[in-house]
Amino acid sequence: MRRLKLAVVGVGLIGGSFAMALRRAGAVASVVGFDRDGRALERAAALGVIDTAAGSVSEAARGADLVVVAVPVRAIGSVLHDVGLSMDANAVVTDVGSTKGEVFRTARAELRDRFARFVPGHPIAGRETSGVDAATADLFRGARVMLTPGPEAAADAVEVVRGAWEAVGGRVSTMAADDHDRTFAAVSHLPHLLSFALVSEIAAREDAADLLRFAGGGFRDFTRIAASSPEMWRDIALQNREALLAELDRYGAQLAVFRELVDKGDGPGLERLMAEARASRQSLGTGARRGSSNE
Amino acid sequence: MRRLKLAVVGVGLIGGSFAMALRRAGAVASVVGFDRDGRALERAAALGVIDTAAGSVSEAARGADLVVVAVPVRAIGSVLHDVGLSMDANAVVTDVGSTKGEVFRTARAELRDRFARFVPGHPIAGRETSGVDAATADLFRGARVMLTPGPEAAADAVEVVRGAWEAVGGRVSTMAADDHDRTFAAVSHLPHLLSFALVSEIAAREDAADLLRFAGGGFRDFTRIAASSPEMWRDIALQNREALLAELDRYGAQLAVFRELVDKGDGPGLERLMAEARASRQSLGTGARRGSSNE
Repeated sequence: MRRLKLAVVGVGLIGGSFAMALRRAGAVASVVGFDRDGRALERAAALGVIDTAAGSVSEAARGADLVVVAVPVRAIGSVLHDVGLSMDANAVVTDVGSTKGEVFRTARAELRDRFARFVPGHPIAGRETSGVDAATADLFRGARVMLTPGPEAAADAVEVVRGAWEAVGGRVSTMAADDHDRTFAAVSHLPHLLSFALVSEIAAREDAADLLRFAGGGFRDFTRIAASSPEMWRDIALQNREALLAELDRYGAQLAVFRELVDKGDGPGLERLMAEARASRQSLGTGARRGSSNE
Repeated sequence: MRRLKLAVVGVGLIGGSFAMALRRAGAVASVVGFDRDGRALERAAALGVIDTAAGSVSEAARGADLVVVAVPVRAIGSVLHDVGLSMDANAVVTDVGSTKGEVFRTARAELRDRFARFVPGHPIAGRETSGVDAATADLFRGARVMLTPGPEAAADAVEVVRGAWEAVGGRVSTMAADDHDRTFAAVSHLPHLLSFALVSEIAAREDAADLLRFAGGGFRDFTRIAASSPEMWRDIALQNREALLAELDRYGAQLAVFRELVDKGDGPGLERLMAEARASRQSLGTGARRGSSNE
């Protein structure tokens, strides 16, 4: 792989870690960064995560081979607009957002004649901490990375993005943006919402402190994702609204079935559903404890 | 503390671990065990977890200073009945069940004139694996242990049970049985049901395997407790039915609030509730990964 001139817009945990990992893999010739938070940008330069701090999105994108947009999903549109203004015709653009359908539609509108150079991405990796100080070159080692290029995407652009993720240890899968969003509504967005709902409900009680004093390991694991970024998960919930509502309704129906079984004292019925859940969960294995902030 | 003649009825993970831990602490003179599963009983003897295998509950309890009933909650009644028939007048009886109200009422009926010698207990510890082969003397080190003696309980009996748990590293708290059940309905029983419901709902789909392939660390942690014992959690749900139904209804109401916010696209409302959840969850800390099977 040719060594890339890399531009990173948004030098937080994900953007910073991607730059560090690509550098360690020997895959980059230079790294320019931009962040609307000037202190984060300075910090990224001080840590050596980026070589050069740009003064704007357009300045960062100018002359880059690969532009990585690692900002919150709701901010991607305006960033892509500015990237489109200055990027080289052969440059490749990707993002790291947790929802892909909205990003895809926004990118089409903002990048216009550069849209074939856009390859949407979503690395399934994160940590509970955020910011460039938490960035690490190991973040994506063994992590699943979803790419959701449309039929318009240039094959060479897809290969550049795939190659970059593989260089940092990612296991790359490709699927359509809407399939991605339905899948992650079920296995990520819904569980996050369920966990936020449980903790917010308990936190609002007068005796919350007394209750939480007796929380064991099961509660801690179940609610670990409720410590994720509210801004980020607010945006994910709203960007993937339709698929999430559908999942909420399916879940609500299943919870009503459980409630009915408990109410009726139907032991065999409860045991059957619990056993099905256990078998399915056991097939997943225990896995490593991973962060949740970008799932 | 005087070295105890210990009887363990139910030589599984909890009963076996308690016996091993008390022995290591130098707190027992002898350990007699009984289990209705003959192979488990043989195995406990072969592993040296117990010194003697008894032929019945009554035989195990006869002459013991402390009888630990470590069987599923629904089986506690009949075991206590047999314990009551043969136990010494000054012997102490305890259990390790995850619900306490039903156990308390059952014990009163079954132990009758020995009821003052009963000190209900609930160690907040477990592992995903079960059985005496998974037993370990370290299981209760640093674990919270709830005792729920009634006003009738003899003070010396409470001190024997407290002393035994402290000898194996437990941090003992005391509360009324019904308060215990309300507390654990909120922080343990409800989360287990929510996790079982999510995994069972996904497992029933045609594309379950495709979905689970993309499950990340957040999903794994959220659903780890769905791998817990169906028999045990069926019993807990039914034994603590009223408190659990009340928790399910509170949770359902909060989930409806989240659904409404997503449906309306109310970003500030979502962010506020998520931020409250995050602050509350962060106050708990990360904690060690602990088992869930006996919470």
